[in-house]
Amino acid sequence: MSGLLTLFCRHTSASLLIQENAAPAVRRDMEKFFDGLAPEGAGLYEHDDEGLDDMPAHLKTALTQVQISVPVMDGKLMLGTWQGIYLFEHREHPSQREIVLHLVGI
Amino acid sequence: MSGLLTLFCRHTSASLLIQENAAPAVRRDMEKFFDGLAPEGAGLYEHDDEGLDDMPAHLKTALTQVQISVPVMDGKLMLGTWQGIYLFEHREHPSQREIVLHLVGI
Amino acid sequence: MSGLLTLFCRHTSASLLIQENAAPAVRRDMEKFFDGLAPEGAGLYEHDDEGLDDMPAHLKTALTQVQISVPVMDGKLMLGTWQGIYLFEHREHPSQREIVLHLVGI
Repeated sequence: MSGLLTLFCRHTSASLLIQENAAPAVRRDMEKFFDGLAPEGAGLYEHDDEGLDDMPAHLKTALTQVQISVPVMDGKLMLGTWQGIYLFEHREHPSQREIVLHLVGI
Repeated sequence: MSGLLTLFCRHTSASLLIQENAAPAVRRDMEKFFDGLAPEGAGLYEHDDEGLDDMPAHLKTALTQVQISVPVMDGKLMLGTWQGIYLFEHREHPSQREIVLHLVGI
Repeated sequence: MSGLLTLFCRHTSASLLIQENAAPAVRRDMEKFFDGLAPEGAGLYEHDDEGLDDMPAHLKTALTQVQISVPVMDGKLMLGTWQGIYLFEHREHPSQREIVLHLVGI
């Protein structure tokens, strides 16, 4: 089976990320970086309907991706050795998330 | 009809964004955030052929996407409840923009 | 031949970028901007296994894309006039890079 697998995240406060799958420190640095780039804070944003983490979550989603397509060859995702696919949750109290998968191929 | 719809923005100073489709404040905060991240200013960038908003527009495009693929099921885009697809214009005096659509499916 | 070409970068410290293909100053400003956004520095990040440019490279990859799909019509990529596809290298001493191509179409 060869083709293309598309992952689509149906949310505006969580996103998809292909990143280092070995050192957990990368994920901690990643979260810290995005927290600094799109910080929480009273009065920082006009939109805060769902709390202080509401608008930062939208911004982090915009800065990353909600869709990633990965080629498939002989039934295997063609990820690099160090690549893992992550759901990047941006809310402090997340609910369940939905990812749609689409596969084209033969 | 089910498949995958790809949107491709043929520009380097406008991009595509899937974001919150309800509260207009999200879009205002979004623009303000990107204006702060890639600010305009005399002497800030080497490239200013088309004015002070030239290079910031390229940077905002690089930070978001020019291509998004969305799965289609039974003739409907599989967007989440709160997701809308936006053209994110980064120039102050934009001209007409072109988006190429590609659909694969049956 | 018409269809969709997908480029997939198999790395976590290099990424793909569609950007201005004319003025070289755009590429210099682009690099400078991302260097400022995700700076190198001793003690800035927990993860520095491969040197000071290790974590900044992961961050720049997360902020851009490892996958881009471009529609193809009559054998030609449907890029805009000013669009070029770049491999955005984020390491100072890069090794060889692999890009997987997937084409669907007729």
